[in-house]
Amino acid sequence: MATPFKRIGLFGRTGTPGVKETLQSLIDYLLPLGCDICVELETADALKMTDLPIISREQLSLQADLLIVIGGDGSLLHAAHTAVDQKIPVLGINRGSLGFLTDILPTALDQVGMILQGHYQIEDRFLLTASVSQPGQASQEDNALNEVAIMPAAFPHMIEFEIYINDEFVCSQHADGIIAATPTGSTAYAMSGGGPILHPALNAIVLVPMFPHSLNSRPIVVPGDAEVTVLISPDSQTVPRLSCDGHPCISIPGGSKITLHKKPQPLQLVHPIDYSYYKALRSKLHWGKKLTHGE
Amino acid sequence: MATPFKRIGLFGRTGTPGVKETLQSLIDYLLPLGCDICVELETADALKMTDLPIISREQLSLQADLLIVIGGDGSLLHAAHTAVDQKIPVLGINRGSLGFLTDILPTALDQVGMILQGHYQIEDRFLLTASVSQPGQASQEDNALNEVAIMPAAFPHMIEFEIYINDEFVCSQHADGIIAATPTGSTAYAMSGGGPILHPALNAIVLVPMFPHSLNSRPIVVPGDAEVTVLISPDSQTVPRLSCDGHPCISIPGGSKITLHKKPQPLQLVHPIDYSYYKALRSKLHWGKKLTHGE
Amino acid sequence: MATPFKRIGLFGRTGTPGVKETLQSLIDYLLPLGCDICVELETADALKMTDLPIISREQLSLQADLLIVIGGDGSLLHAAHTAVDQKIPVLGINRGSLGFLTDILPTALDQVGMILQGHYQIEDRFLLTASVSQPGQASQEDNALNEVAIMPAAFPHMIEFEIYINDEFVCSQHADGIIAATPTGSTAYAMSGGGPILHPALNAIVLVPMFPHSLNSRPIVVPGDAEVTVLISPDSQTVPRLSCDGHPCISIPGGSKITLHKKPQPLQLVHPIDYSYYKALRSKLHWGKKLTHGE
Amino acid sequence: MATPFKRIGLFGRTGTPGVKETLQSLIDYLLPLGCDICVELETADALKMTDLPIISREQLSLQADLLIVIGGDGSLLHAAHTAVDQKIPVLGINRGSLGFLTDILPTALDQVGMILQGHYQIEDRFLLTASVSQPGQASQEDNALNEVAIMPAAFPHMIEFEIYINDEFVCSQHADGIIAATPTGSTAYAMSGGGPILHPALNAIVLVPMFPHSLNSRPIVVPGDAEVTVLISPDSQTVPRLSCDGHPCISIPGGSKITLHKKPQPLQLVHPIDYSYYKALRSKLHWGKKLTHGE
Repeated sequence: MATPFKRIGLFGRTGTPGVKETLQSLIDYLLPLGCDICVELETADALKMTDLPIISREQLSLQADLLIVIGGDGSLLHAAHTAVDQKIPVLGINRGSLGFLTDILPTALDQVGMILQGHYQIEDRFLLTASVSQPGQASQEDNALNEVAIMPAAFPHMIEFEIYINDEFVCSQHADGIIAATPTGSTAYAMSGGGPILHPALNAIVLVPMFPHSLNSRPIVVPGDAEVTVLISPDSQTVPRLSCDGHPCISIPGGSKITLHKKPQPLQLVHPIDYSYYKALRSKLHWGKKLTHGE
Repeated sequence: MATPFKRIGLFGRTGTPGVKETLQSLIDYLLPLGCDICVELETADALKMTDLPIISREQLSLQADLLIVIGGDGSLLHAAHTAVDQKIPVLGINRGSLGFLTDILPTALDQVGMILQGHYQIEDRFLLTASVSQPGQASQEDNALNEVAIMPAAFPHMIEFEIYINDEFVCSQHADGIIAATPTGSTAYAMSGGGPILHPALNAIVLVPMFPHSLNSRPIVVPGDAEVTVLISPDSQTVPRLSCDGHPCISIPGGSKITLHKKPQPLQLVHPIDYSYYKALRSKLHWGKKLTHGE
Repeated sequence: MATPFKRIGLFGRTGTPGVKETLQSLIDYLLPLGCDICVELETADALKMTDLPIISREQLSLQADLLIVIGGDGSLLHAAHTAVDQKIPVLGINRGSLGFLTDILPTALDQVGMILQGHYQIEDRFLLTASVSQPGQASQEDNALNEVAIMPAAFPHMIEFEIYINDEFVCSQHADGIIAATPTGSTAYAMSGGGPILHPALNAIVLVPMFPHSLNSRPIVVPGDAEVTVLISPDSQTVPRLSCDGHPCISIPGGSKITLHKKPQPLQLVHPIDYSYYKALRSKLHWGKKLTHGE
Repeated sequence: MATPFKRIGLFGRTGTPGVKETLQSLIDYLLPLGCDICVELETADALKMTDLPIISREQLSLQADLLIVIGGDGSLLHAAHTAVDQKIPVLGINRGSLGFLTDILPTALDQVGMILQGHYQIEDRFLLTASVSQPGQASQEDNALNEVAIMPAAFPHMIEFEIYINDEFVCSQHADGIIAATPTGSTAYAMSGGGPILHPALNAIVLVPMFPHSLNSRPIVVPGDAEVTVLISPDSQTVPRLSCDGHPCISIPGGSKITLHKKPQPLQLVHPIDYSYYKALRSKLHWGKKLTHGE
């Protein structure tokens, strides 16, 4: 096989129906190809798989040069953080419908075979690192492939904050919060809030205000290498929280400073050779097909 | 003077009140500084100026290494096409309120003096070139600093078209039309249609559907080097038209193919040394000032 | 038959595929039921139907107490003006997918039978009357079941106008135009422009600005009995036009005054007894079905 | 005095700067007019006022036939619940800028005098009552003048729910939540979420989805007498909460049923005789003034 991918790590989450079946089908498909396969520890535990090498997330790169995730976009999002830290590319097999991140249907495992033979596309997707510093506290950090959201934790829900880009003052806002999304995340939570779609090849971040008090607020797209700073008003009457990729993480009381910048190490996303971003868009957003001969 | 700008061309449009007065103030300000000044032909005609060298647009670069425009953003937009063709930088003096493109107020002509002394910022703003090819016709071309809009010319107003990016099919749409805007144009017509703000440093184009029939349509931001193609359905029951920067230009009947790409030669926009894009945004969009100490 | 509908008028447009076939099926279905059937003149001409009584639009009410329209929502919209003038209720049979106005599929003609037996709902839908008065000209009038749109006819496309409600000044706007929609029209063109959905039972009109220059513009819903007046600025540099239900009608140069009010005579729309407005919404807008047991 | 308002109750909140000063000015203005004045208990406590009769909220109607609120829209919103329960009209004096609910500036107390002389408008504004029933629990109830919001209390923030109107199924949604706003509330939180403006005279409720997962979701305006029911999915992985007018109130775990209906007793809002709703809109939303002679 003319491929860099000889050793495969497998990852799946248990909540989703059909994951175990697809994982087993994949193993049955891969073993005859002579692949070395290992299963991530929590996946193995949850699915009670004992007949293959089991490995912790932190050691995946020792045993695998490709991580295959079985599940939806949420599962791939979850696994992405491990893949980035372990510097191994990731491929997603979707349970059910096509995802933005998980391209391969369980009924098309031969696409995995093609990829292992070297027929694939690889795409860098950048992450955002959020650093939070608060008066009198050690700073905290987290990463997001989709978005960093600054949101209220309780009523009253309005937050007052200032935005700076590369240390230049942009504006102050009264809003429920703000979302800073990568191109990858532009079709996720940010889009529900009225943000535009950013092509994945763009080096850009979109800032989407959440329920802004002023009608003049608009999503703003800034260069991906910009440093975005959000200062929570010291007079804030509530304690907002910062969430990366939908997971709760850090309380950010009044006076907190949140700095966002692009993480140097990107996620490497593997696609079938005939992958089309626009086809995924059309499928997910029910966009119009070709006028003359459909698709 | 340590400046590349020794010879100044002047441009103004007559519709706007106060343009003649500001032009005269500017001349009175510049002459004692020892500048060589010339006036663009139509400007001189309209304002009946006869005591300074007069020059046609096509020859501006022979006599000027800086074009100063007096008027609003519309006037600068108009002059920009000449400035790009003549490859000379342009500076805008606004009559009235601050513009996105015209930074200097007529009450602050000393900022022009500072610029001539070499204290300035220069910024590249790219244009879009639209090429239209129709069955059995010579192709036509036009340029836009703000946006290319494909719009209906008559009722029924719905247009059916396909979008391709780098020859890859994106989607078909039933809509009143579509706007393709540069970062410069993102705060103009495209914003009225719900498009996001693109920072001027971004190398990106935003496509904004106009009154799309499908609720799933969204603005999409693509790399600035992408080639965007729009195919008007051959079955189109109406003859749409293509407009660059709000000027009517080209009829595009069913079967027309419109190709958009970045014009190689950018506009060079001159700003005062303390220019801030965000300050212009705050001023034009009434965005919130600093929370603690205003601005 | 315990029904007010014994004499049926038929109306169809020829552009739409399958209309003739469905019309014939409907006739074959209705004749054995003992209905008196007549065909509208243009429909008969276009479809070359000669074996049934033919009648002009203006005389429909002499021969029919129900008008059945075969086609899409556009056909019903077209026929609605005749139905209102002739004061006869209208029922729509859709070719293809469910419409907002045309509830019955050609495969479910038994629903027509049920209606003729007296099992139906009848719903009033109001129209808007637009009166245009221009300096030195006789006033003109037109009606709209969906919406009255004030739009540019040529470049430059921006219109400047003032809005009054019940003679009280509301605001001035710079925009491409404005849409005034009935609840019936709220799911048509107005929705493409970002307007809300108005339940058909609401006595309300929604005003939707088109590409407003100010970001603060928002759709506004006003009482259905309000008189809405739009004054085109006397300084208007363009001649906008007024369009009712997507048909071109009246040029409205600078200084024109457009007055909108509810037409006293409503359209009577006939539905099957189990008709649900929300089901039509779900079907047309792909809204979510019941969580537990689908639909 | 030809007025129904002889006995005035005063209400102010302490957080807002200038409330005490305006309250004192108002008292100084009212006493010479021969008014009977009483001060609401908490207001008196907070502002340390001891020289006027003090009365609890629950007994306001015994001593007052008009409640004057000093503060912003938030203060009036707060006082409105008391005014409705006590069935006395309410008048708002704004500290600072014009509000939607508080029409009178502290520099224009003579408008209060005019009102007491009988020159005023009175307007009914309806409230929404939200009833929550949960399996195995007593039902709970709360009222909102602006809006009832169903929102997440914690991550993951997505809620799954069904909407019914008059027991007819409308749709299911995956969203952060939903806002049901009165016309009064349509210019408050609901507008931040993209909802339309509803004229206060409309008998209508607008439902605005919050960060809906589907791009096809739209605000929907339904008759004010409709009963709106929201069923939280029994499988909900989070415990949302229901908030009336921005105050936290009721936990609504999976399986909860929320029923919204118009409260029979409206708020009576008193305005100066020359009050204009549209003037308030123009002022708050920076809408365009008259084209020819400004305003």
